[in-house]
Amino acid sequence: MKPVKVGICGLGTVGGGTFNVLTRNKRDISARAGVEIDIIQVGTRRGNSACDLTQTAVVTDIFDVVRNPDVDIVVELIGGTTVARALVLEAIANGKQVVTANKALIAEHGNEIFARAAEQGVSVAFEAAVAGGIPIIKALREGLAGNRIEWLAGIINGTGNFILTEMRDKGRAFDDVLAEAQALGYAEADPTFDVEGIDAAHKLVILASLAFGMPLQFDKVFTEGISKIAPEDVAYAQELGYRIKHLGIAKQTAAGIELRVHPTMIPEKRLIANVDGVMNAVLVKGDAVGPTLYYGAGAGAEPTASAVVADIIDLARNVTVGFEHRVPALGFHPQGQNVQPNILPQSEVETAYYLRLLAEDRPGVLAQISTILADANISVEALIQKEPQQDAPQVPLILLTSRAIERQLMTAIEKIEALSVIHGEVTHIRVESLG
Amino acid sequence: MKPVKVGICGLGTVGGGTFNVLTRNKRDISARAGVEIDIIQVGTRRGNSACDLTQTAVVTDIFDVVRNPDVDIVVELIGGTTVARALVLEAIANGKQVVTANKALIAEHGNEIFARAAEQGVSVAFEAAVAGGIPIIKALREGLAGNRIEWLAGIINGTGNFILTEMRDKGRAFDDVLAEAQALGYAEADPTFDVEGIDAAHKLVILASLAFGMPLQFDKVFTEGISKIAPEDVAYAQELGYRIKHLGIAKQTAAGIELRVHPTMIPEKRLIANVDGVMNAVLVKGDAVGPTLYYGAGAGAEPTASAVVADIIDLARNVTVGFEHRVPALGFHPQGQNVQPNILPQSEVETAYYLRLLAEDRPGVLAQISTILADANISVEALIQKEPQQDAPQVPLILLTSRAIERQLMTAIEKIEALSVIHGEVTHIRVESLG
Repeated sequence: MKPVKVGICGLGTVGGGTFNVLTRNKRDISARAGVEIDIIQVGTRRGNSACDLTQTAVVTDIFDVVRNPDVDIVVELIGGTTVARALVLEAIANGKQVVTANKALIAEHGNEIFARAAEQGVSVAFEAAVAGGIPIIKALREGLAGNRIEWLAGIINGTGNFILTEMRDKGRAFDDVLAEAQALGYAEADPTFDVEGIDAAHKLVILASLAFGMPLQFDKVFTEGISKIAPEDVAYAQELGYRIKHLGIAKQTAAGIELRVHPTMIPEKRLIANVDGVMNAVLVKGDAVGPTLYYGAGAGAEPTASAVVADIIDLARNVTVGFEHRVPALGFHPQGQNVQPNILPQSEVETAYYLRLLAEDRPGVLAQISTILADANISVEALIQKEPQQDAPQVPLILLTSRAIERQLMTAIEKIEALSVIHGEVTHIRVESLG
Repeated sequence: MKPVKVGICGLGTVGGGTFNVLTRNKRDISARAGVEIDIIQVGTRRGNSACDLTQTAVVTDIFDVVRNPDVDIVVELIGGTTVARALVLEAIANGKQVVTANKALIAEHGNEIFARAAEQGVSVAFEAAVAGGIPIIKALREGLAGNRIEWLAGIINGTGNFILTEMRDKGRAFDDVLAEAQALGYAEADPTFDVEGIDAAHKLVILASLAFGMPLQFDKVFTEGISKIAPEDVAYAQELGYRIKHLGIAKQTAAGIELRVHPTMIPEKRLIANVDGVMNAVLVKGDAVGPTLYYGAGAGAEPTASAVVADIIDLARNVTVGFEHRVPALGFHPQGQNVQPNILPQSEVETAYYLRLLAEDRPGVLAQISTILADANISVEALIQKEPQQDAPQVPLILLTSRAIERQLMTAIEKIEALSVIHGEVTHIRVESLG
């Protein structure tokens, strides 16, 4: 059988990993695909010292790869959304199969890209775009395809999880750990994408689309970062039997679909609460299967390459039999998609809450707070009241509330903050049982 | 497009679940498959009170289903290996696509069944045969296809895991928990298959075949059950920072392939050590991706049905484009399989060990034991020596050893048992770091 010919665009971390995995495991990969898979061209300006390119045709213009008539599969690993979009659209127009690891590209331009690919009868595969080497796209799109997905919740940013894990294990402050993560290369010089949840939002949007059968809706995600998490919140959470994780959550409710990324307290006995360091995990609740969890490395050269190569093998298995689109890109065939899903605004989302406030140490304070909460139909499930610190007339008060609509909780918080006996702002962290 | 027509053979727990999931989620399933999937016939003698069969053609002879010319996909859910084998082979001979949840059938007759299916150009899908609703077959066969799988370790029998979890949580004895598990319906009246590891061995053989590209080798699996695990071993393990799990382990080593099911001590901080109750999990180590873990319900009507239905959708997605065998049944195409793999006998396997022995409380005992171990090149990594119990002249001695070849360890144990200062047998449990 004629070999399947791959062209790689971009030879950075993931590109280099992909090149090396395809080369090192060539025999097993061909035995699995039923056809030889050859890298016939690499587009890179800087090369990669981790790769032996002596046997490979290298071009400096990545567009040469998508225009090469011999290339069957174009692998886009340059990142970004402008040039990458142009590259992928041209590859599709030229009838190439496409593999990409680019979460931002899929989250922001996926609807356009998949529509063009459908017109051209080619596939665009993107397993590596979410949770690195964990085959979560395949699990949602194929492995759980018999289920109505009720919700999913994922630790889908390794940098954020590393920071929260260090804060918990060593009682350190956010800024301090972030600086270390930057020194270790876990965090970018500009950490905004990671710590403010934008990267997680990109991934969440992709997962939600697959789970609920709807187009990608990046602009509808509520996003809150972890930069405001204080060491004392991490400690109080632990005292209450919880861990704080930066979760991406997508949920179908009677009111609509929730799409949200925010720091979340979860019971420490949940498996996902014990996913630490830079590791990723996605918990998916299907109506038939119940909860399932997928865990692994969410980034790094070879873990991400593992997913890129799986996509290449998938496409090669299709190409050899002259068939594309066995599995639709977003899991559902376009006519079966919900094109106008009702995405809930965050103000309408219902969760429980952890509240931390600084109150004057005098009688009646708790009664005032409880009354405000009770008026909003919010009850107090747990309470920690600390001894006042030396010379401090205020005492920290920690409450776990019942489940409440966010809008009502926020109104209650405003009223609590307006009390003369309360100092400063009320810290709130959402609590999910994930049961 | 013409609907894909399904015939279900067997309407017990999993058959009933499959019928209900396919019926309840019909709209989403069709939207995912791109074609309507209809159950056109069910073969069952007893029916199932959980299923509304008023709209369904029911026959009492399951062979009527495989002979029905209108049926595209036969779903075998009768269990056992004799009738099930005949049924599946006849379905294949009649050109049907086949889905089965039958681990014993695949482990013991899979090589024959896949060969016949290849001759006929049909697929036999078996996602539900291992770890119930967890899409682990798909993960190994497709999601991790770019990797050289180094090893995998799974909690793949829910009954055994439930028993070990109860023993740990409540300090109860094996027999006591088994009786409760039987009363709860988690364990069969004859629990041998579950607690002696035969069921896990069936599943392990399937996973190993997919991971390492070799035919199914059921007769080569080393199997040791959990019935001899004593409550004190569970407690000592915990004291040493470990948990005891009944693992199926498959590993490629320079010496050969290990295939083994036995009670295993693993560090409590590992995620898989925290998979409790009837839940299943499989940890897979790939050369590119590193460790990944897959967790979910390993049994039950709808979790298992989730996997059966995923297979049906996979086949329907293939059938609609007139293509079978996109992915070979055992992951590797036959010409790429290692047909004569070197499976290591258990005596040649290397692990660390937990040893518990009853020694006389006098000087020099530890020296005698250490000398025997040292002569076999085995060192002692940790030691717990308990105070002798009232009136008992012997004292329990617990050792964690370095990694050793099982043959050498067993010889050392024989020598230790022969010492006059040692009473009774030496308990041994294998220790794996799974790092």
